[in-house]
Amino acid sequence: MRVALDGGAGVPLRRQIAGQLRAAILERRLPPGARLPSSRRMAAELNCARGTVLAAIDDLIAEGYVVARPGSGVAAAANLPDEMLAPPRAGAAAGAAGAPPPALPARTTALLAAARDVASGPAAPVAFPLGQPDREAFPFPLWAKLLEREWRRPGWQVAGAPHPFGHAGLRAAIAAYLGAARGFACEAAEVVVTSGVQQAVTLFARAVLEPGARAWIEEPGYPGVAAALEAAEAVPAPVPIDAAGFSAEAALAAAPDARLAVVAPSHHFPLGTVMSLPRRLALLAWAERAGGWIVEDDFDGEYRYAGRPLAPLRALDRSGRVAYLGSFSKLLFPTLRLSFMVLPPPLAAPMERVMAALSAPAALLGQGALARFIADGHFAAHLRRTRVLYAARQEAVVAAAARHLRGMLAVPPDVGGMHLVARPDAGVRLDDRAATAAAGAACVRVARLSVCYRGEAAAHGLLLGYAGTPDADIEPAIRRLADALAVRHAAPARPRD
Amino acid sequence: MRVALDGGAGVPLRRQIAGQLRAAILERRLPPGARLPSSRRMAAELNCARGTVLAAIDDLIAEGYVVARPGSGVAAAANLPDEMLAPPRAGAAAGAAGAPPPALPARTTALLAAARDVASGPAAPVAFPLGQPDREAFPFPLWAKLLEREWRRPGWQVAGAPHPFGHAGLRAAIAAYLGAARGFACEAAEVVVTSGVQQAVTLFARAVLEPGARAWIEEPGYPGVAAALEAAEAVPAPVPIDAAGFSAEAALAAAPDARLAVVAPSHHFPLGTVMSLPRRLALLAWAERAGGWIVEDDFDGEYRYAGRPLAPLRALDRSGRVAYLGSFSKLLFPTLRLSFMVLPPPLAAPMERVMAALSAPAALLGQGALARFIADGHFAAHLRRTRVLYAARQEAVVAAAARHLRGMLAVPPDVGGMHLVARPDAGVRLDDRAATAAAGAACVRVARLSVCYRGEAAAHGLLLGYAGTPDADIEPAIRRLADALAVRHAAPARPRD
Repeated sequence: MRVALDGGAGVPLRRQIAGQLRAAILERRLPPGARLPSSRRMAAELNCARGTVLAAIDDLIAEGYVVARPGSGVAAAANLPDEMLAPPRAGAAAGAAGAPPPALPARTTALLAAARDVASGPAAPVAFPLGQPDREAFPFPLWAKLLEREWRRPGWQVAGAPHPFGHAGLRAAIAAYLGAARGFACEAAEVVVTSGVQQAVTLFARAVLEPGARAWIEEPGYPGVAAALEAAEAVPAPVPIDAAGFSAEAALAAAPDARLAVVAPSHHFPLGTVMSLPRRLALLAWAERAGGWIVEDDFDGEYRYAGRPLAPLRALDRSGRVAYLGSFSKLLFPTLRLSFMVLPPPLAAPMERVMAALSAPAALLGQGALARFIADGHFAAHLRRTRVLYAARQEAVVAAAARHLRGMLAVPPDVGGMHLVARPDAGVRLDDRAATAAAGAACVRVARLSVCYRGEAAAHGLLLGYAGTPDADIEPAIRRLADALAVRHAAPARPRD
Repeated sequence: MRVALDGGAGVPLRRQIAGQLRAAILERRLPPGARLPSSRRMAAELNCARGTVLAAIDDLIAEGYVVARPGSGVAAAANLPDEMLAPPRAGAAAGAAGAPPPALPARTTALLAAARDVASGPAAPVAFPLGQPDREAFPFPLWAKLLEREWRRPGWQVAGAPHPFGHAGLRAAIAAYLGAARGFACEAAEVVVTSGVQQAVTLFARAVLEPGARAWIEEPGYPGVAAALEAAEAVPAPVPIDAAGFSAEAALAAAPDARLAVVAPSHHFPLGTVMSLPRRLALLAWAERAGGWIVEDDFDGEYRYAGRPLAPLRALDRSGRVAYLGSFSKLLFPTLRLSFMVLPPPLAAPMERVMAALSAPAALLGQGALARFIADGHFAAHLRRTRVLYAARQEAVVAAAARHLRGMLAVPPDVGGMHLVARPDAGVRLDDRAATAAAGAACVRVARLSVCYRGEAAAHGLLLGYAGTPDADIEPAIRRLADALAVRHAAPARPRD
């Protein structure tokens, strides 16, 4: 048996000795029942104090690897299962680095097949990422100061025992902001801080729906909504939208028993459609009549470049059936991961009591700093700055598309939002899966319109997120996109998938 | 029709006029089709510029509330559903356009000040909360500085596009810490930052189990584990533990088809049992033989007051079947909400690719600061300080219990952890539901042993979390507990529930 000590390894001698004896037992170099050399002999061989050897052996006795036999020293334990005592296989010690990947269930294998390779290096900035704000606009030094101030001496409600709906100051700041900016009154008590819009949808659906109940979603729509409903054991019922947005009449025809509608009336994702006032009132009338619930997703309602927005459903709701959702992550920076939901007033008290059972709370770390950021006017100022920035970017995309994509794709302007939809010109056939792949190869990360359909895609198109694309990159990226598509366009037409 | 303007409300006149006309239409004071007064007349009555009235009417036309009739002025729209036009019910004003929205800065500041008072107000500290660290021990001023430094100029990988497993620096710091403190080597690439132990269990079970597959859990055990498995559509199979901890043999007898075991070998929750080495090796042998997986929950393994801990399962695992879980929230402060999972090496690459589909990422805001906290040695120093503190608190609880609970409850010491288990003395009958209620009335928040059983509770007892209970509060709280139980004890015995 060899025990080699390495005085420079930074590991105490006692632990080195114990570790190597343990390995010798597990690898059968010291077979079950075999007696260990005396502590005196080991100390002499290892050139260390005998007390150190005895301490190591005490550790192994405590761990059960060796047993002390009165009068006859210590021996390797006999009661370790045989399988574990087999000699280690080649490569197994290093975490089975060379071994074939383990068998995984069908669900995971399917996910793996669908997953794109994750880039491990520094993410090269790509043009047109969806849902990402400008990288330079957010005032991080100010944010850092607010964080520092918040955490210097936090109360225990912040550090240890927060309200189930989140930071009280942030909830008050959100309520005040909505009153001023979105034109409806709500109480801080109705505001729940969440880590994302999807979490909010899941939480609300869990609270108001029986498992297996149906919920209307917009077709096309944000794919995350359907996933969020399924996480709440609800069954999404897609309702095709038209030029006036979501229609309660069409929804009732499609799934008359639904008890929840999830809609984006102020700016539909991804098409940008604005739900008309009669449609809004009809949906509210349904909710009141049928005892239904409405989730109003207003996630980029802050960016409106032309005209005045319609009153949110929440502002028109007389009967307390609307939950209103907004997100900060897409407006400030993505890893903030803070969104909010304004509950229908009658639900605030009961959901507070059951919140812990419905959902994990959003991380509290940034909530106090965000409260100050809003209350001190920095949030409104940031929105004003970025509104000008993004309006100009949208114009730049429309202009560049008119120059370079003519004859292939039409990119009309939108009254608001952070992205545009490029649709094939008349007579042009677009396979948006192939087009996004071709664009990706040219470092243009456009998203596909067709994935926003839950059923068969009624249209193909490309989604261009312009908010996070610097001014100078827009025209070159549109040119690269045009080149990538021109090559595809010249290739033989392929059927849509 | 009355329109009253309030120049001091901080709301632009144009929006006040539009808001009140909107309310008049919705409340039928202006019935569908009714013509509005001329803009000239309204301006004269309201004593404001005619342009302001025209702008308000333009807004209402854009919103669809009023329609312009060429040559004959404007009228309330006819196409609003009747139901919405009914007079508002008493008390249904929330969200109706009548009330002017509040001005932002003053009210926000006031609300924030009020909220702050609530946050820092006297949340009555209760004795013996479970899973809570000491309130004073964590160095918040240092933490605030680390946060400030991290967020002053964050890279975009921190602010916008993090790795799906979390902050690279934190993952490296965790790997290095585990090598030094827990005696096993792992790579940063295998470390996933999660928001809690439950999230980690759900994530891992989703990746390795087919829906409906069975997973062994300890009986009794942490109730969150069963909930986390159910969230992954796995079926928990409780396996009673004995004095040597979880037994693979008993587990195979109970549910031979299980493919996952979730265990806490170093310090069982709630009993404190340490899983023996032969049991550890037998469980590992099962995993290797059957292609099973093990989740090793080591959430309070850092607190060990006597003897040396056994090697973790992860350190003994030769075949890459063990995921190791640890938590920072219980060691530092609860709202940190950061935990970690070290994946079996063969699963690191495949799970990286499907992570986005399996689980929401943990909040990134504190991860960089925590990385520095660990790497600069503050974490190890904090553990050393609190280990001394908590060991003394455990002794104080044991001593106080021996004085005041004799004849009712026995509270033996534990080799580690952050709580103790009080069990009824021989001949004493304890209903722990009634006992916790009686204790709560005396401001002693003990938890129940019986809720840790998934099946019928084999034992009743009280769980006393001592780590977060200040030294001076321990003896008085034990006395209050004794008084509360003595009253109950004197009352007629009740059957267990």
